[in-house]
Amino acid sequence: MKNDLQLIKIGGGQDINWDFIAEDLKRLKKFIIIHGANHKITEISKKLGITEKKIISPSGFVSRYTDEKALDVFLMIYAGLVNKKLVALLQKYKINAVGLTGIDGRIWEGKRKNIIYSVENGKTKLINDSLTGNVEKINTNLLNLLVKNGFVPVLCPPAISFDNEIINVDNDRAAAVLTKSLKIKEMIMLLEAPGYCKDLKDPKSVVSKIPFKKLDRFIKIAQSGMKKKLLGVKEAMIGGVEKVYLGDGRVKNPISKILNGAGTLIFKESIYE
Amino acid sequence: MKNDLQLIKIGGGQDINWDFIAEDLKRLKKFIIIHGANHKITEISKKLGITEKKIISPSGFVSRYTDEKALDVFLMIYAGLVNKKLVALLQKYKINAVGLTGIDGRIWEGKRKNIIYSVENGKTKLINDSLTGNVEKINTNLLNLLVKNGFVPVLCPPAISFDNEIINVDNDRAAAVLTKSLKIKEMIMLLEAPGYCKDLKDPKSVVSKIPFKKLDRFIKIAQSGMKKKLLGVKEAMIGGVEKVYLGDGRVKNPISKILNGAGTLIFKESIYE
Repeated sequence: MKNDLQLIKIGGGQDINWDFIAEDLKRLKKFIIIHGANHKITEISKKLGITEKKIISPSGFVSRYTDEKALDVFLMIYAGLVNKKLVALLQKYKINAVGLTGIDGRIWEGKRKNIIYSVENGKTKLINDSLTGNVEKINTNLLNLLVKNGFVPVLCPPAISFDNEIINVDNDRAAAVLTKSLKIKEMIMLLEAPGYCKDLKDPKSVVSKIPFKKLDRFIKIAQSGMKKKLLGVKEAMIGGVEKVYLGDGRVKNPISKILNGAGTLIFKESIYE
Repeated sequence: MKNDLQLIKIGGGQDINWDFIAEDLKRLKKFIIIHGANHKITEISKKLGITEKKIISPSGFVSRYTDEKALDVFLMIYAGLVNKKLVALLQKYKINAVGLTGIDGRIWEGKRKNIIYSVENGKTKLINDSLTGNVEKINTNLLNLLVKNGFVPVLCPPAISFDNEIINVDNDRAAAVLTKSLKIKEMIMLLEAPGYCKDLKDPKSVVSKIPFKKLDRFIKIAQSGMKKKLLGVKEAMIGGVEKVYLGDGRVKNPISKILNGAGTLIFKESIYE
């Protein structure tokens, strides 16, 4: 029997309309949510007088420099403010949501990176106090237990290391590992864009379908944020996901619109054979 | 069969030693944790430039004035920073903890107080923007499901109103309603004191045993913080709890010491009949 569990990924941008999303999620049956909170992190960090530091990896990816102070803010915003407000909103729409991080029940377990490289002014530097890592193992029993009993897990970083440290992880890659472990076939990603756009400034340039075999081409030309997302999508599809919908998280009835063909559908050709 | 589920209540004071507690909790079998975070709230509110406002009720109880800004801080510290750090710490000691608020799965449901009274400079004022309430209903299915499957729920405020607002609630009273719903017979409360002390300044004045029928006398003479706790204890014992241990949350092996007679044991006489 085909797995009917879906993964909904909600971006953490300022213009994402959580209310529209929560309202429209009622139409789905069995799903897990993973959400971001980037905009709120920036906003609250400023208020706390904490400078957000970025790391640019030698291969050009931008990520957050997470020392202990930054991790505290991360916990406050992700696990506290954003996760719980989303859970309350979902409860309003009769979705029995349960907010969790990767720490709870060790859902997201991984290795802390002891050393990471950062390119600053053309020079590569070593950073050894970064509390980051990659999700390598999903402890699926808690998620399965909740889903089986009618609850909707609402999941966000951070994760926990094999040595019990709290570690920041990339949401898109964590989602990929999760879909593989839970054998999820469909993923819906809600963005601050109408889908994958050839020209970022032109919403009408959205590509409506991308077969998996052409995904690499799009990854190559995509810009930083979208490139990371598409790499996550690729990893998820290699792991077994068959359909990924990218669509607009700012509009009314976002899920319905996406499932009716708005946005970008990335698909495994095999499912149409 | 007697219910062997225990409730552990951990105070949110600055000197509570979370590591000692987590380490010693391994000795227990089936339990739920409820924790506070008061000290961190005060610390982070200051950093955020938010003035903590207190309300003194006409009957003399001090509570936090929770408007929308204060509730945001509350979510960040309780649900985010403190809850998740405690969960990670428990995981370190092989306790499979899952951090939750009363919002998740609607565990703590109640009515928002539309109007509350505050005494300021001898005058009674009406406050109508307070996001507070009382827990009236426990949705036990999530907690039972987790406990039955070997997870340890780590619970903290806020709660959710019947109208889906996030509301701040009193931890001690919420604990009382919880013990009744789950038919819990034993509660251990970890404080910044060696137990109930006749003289707050003299740790040797700790009262080692208080029979339930004498509890009212102690409530009468107790000071604000302890009075509130004892009122919670009374409510819990009327609801069915038979033993409440009050003990020191600052020392090594706190649980072992408490169960071996350190601290104060409040007990229903009937259990010794």
